Amino acid sequence: MTYCVGAMIDAGLVFASDSRTNAGIDNVSTYRKMKVFENAGDRVIVVLSSGNLAITQATLAQLEQIIKRGNVPNLMSVGSMYEATELIGAALRQVRERDGLHLQQNNVDAGANFIVGGQIAGEPMRLFLVYAEGNFIEATPETPYFQIGETKYGKPIIDRIVNKDTTMLRTVKCVLVSFDSTMRSNLSVGMPIDLVCYARDDLRVLHSRHLDESDEYMRRLRILWGEGLNRAFAELPPPDWMA
Amino acid sequence: MTYCVGAMIDAGLVFASDSRTNAGIDNVSTYRKMKVFENAGDRVIVVLSSGNLAITQATLAQLEQIIKRGNVPNLMSVGSMYEATELIGAALRQVRERDGLHLQQNNVDAGANFIVGGQIAGEPMRLFLVYAEGNFIEATPETPYFQIGETKYGKPIIDRIVNKDTTMLRTVKCVLVSFDSTMRSNLSVGMPIDLVCYARDDLRVLHSRHLDESDEYMRRLRILWGEGLNRAFAELPPPDWMA
Repeated sequence: MTYCVGAMIDAGLVFASDSRTNAGIDNVSTYRKMKVFENAGDRVIVVLSSGNLAITQATLAQLEQIIKRGNVPNLMSVGSMYEATELIGAALRQVRERDGLHLQQNNVDAGANFIVGGQIAGEPMRLFLVYAEGNFIEATPETPYFQIGETKYGKPIIDRIVNKDTTMLRTVKCVLVSFDSTMRSNLSVGMPIDLVCYARDDLRVLHSRHLDESDEYMRRLRILWGEGLNRAFAELPPPDWMA
Repeated sequence: MTYCVGAMIDAGLVFASDSRTNAGIDNVSTYRKMKVFENAGDRVIVVLSSGNLAITQATLAQLEQIIKRGNVPNLMSVGSMYEATELIGAALRQVRERDGLHLQQNNVDAGANFIVGGQIAGEPMRLFLVYAEGNFIEATPETPYFQIGETKYGKPIIDRIVNKDTTMLRTVKCVLVSFDSTMRSNLSVGMPIDLVCYARDDLRVLHSRHLDESDEYMRRLRILWGEGLNRAFAELPPPDWMA
């Protein structure tokens, strides 16, 4: 399983992804699920992926090859995030067309999703969710974030905290708490966590962190959040009919 | 959708279920998903159900008819919770055999689950989860609760709070917070909530509450829990690389 979050606030963009993949419980590995396409001063495009790992890797490999060959349009050449997301959706469709039937014959799920966000010079920041079918939707001020993978355990805290006016700092803390809740409830989501922060109109990555098991901040966050929840819970009054 | 929880602590049993069912978003109704079979001094058996409503209703109707007709074995005659759960699993299989093919022809999911818990004189309290196939598992001190339906949003708080030593009061508060989180994140889970508490060896229901939209305690719980979470979140330190 996988857990990825992309959030767009007025101040910028926050992306995070876990690194665990599994093909059955005896086959758990670590792969990066975040790819950053950056040309400082011109563009930052972050792609998070979930679903069938062979499908998402092949999709991204194809997109990178086009860049290397210098064929256009490619992710480093397009003039808008919308076109970048179209390229990703189209590459996903191509890979699924090529591999899908073979996977289906063995009842392997070929599903894959991407979160695509960033900014290209001359355009505002944008954030998209690419469906397994290759079509996509865009985040709005009312729905400022997307999740893919194991989304439910970590959703309630984001719904409470993140809106377009939330600061970058609060958004980062919230995304990491959301990862903590998810990793607690689903063993197939695990460290390390890749985290990227982008400040609006910067056109270069602001923070890029790789938080592994030994990360002191994640360890403290886990303990303090547990204690805070327990305190908040203890302060709730009893029902009158039980008091 | 549905959300039901059954928890077995040393002090007793706590059961709760929501009341919303839907067959498409324009067809949302309220049905009780909790059934209590009680013969004070002899037994209390609580059954919570999720899944296809026609299937769960037919299963329970069949079990009640057998009681009314006085045929044995039935839920009011059996000598153990294990046998009671066997009866429920067998009735579910019968109903699915009768109706399953018809549902399948229209691609309707015939899946259904039950949580079955209680105590029969001469036996300890027990708690079971009945799968859609009619087989079942039993709760243990290490896994003292079961959820059915929309389980993920409300699971993290139960995992943090409930173990076999938790008091009845804390367990009730925790289950209601779990419902609050679930209802916030999934509109198809909704009030009223049916709640039953059973104190170990009492052989009669201790509390039975029907909490509807106007319930003052649930309203306060929702507000106070939101405030408590926000406080706990605000107290978390920033990552050192952002401070």
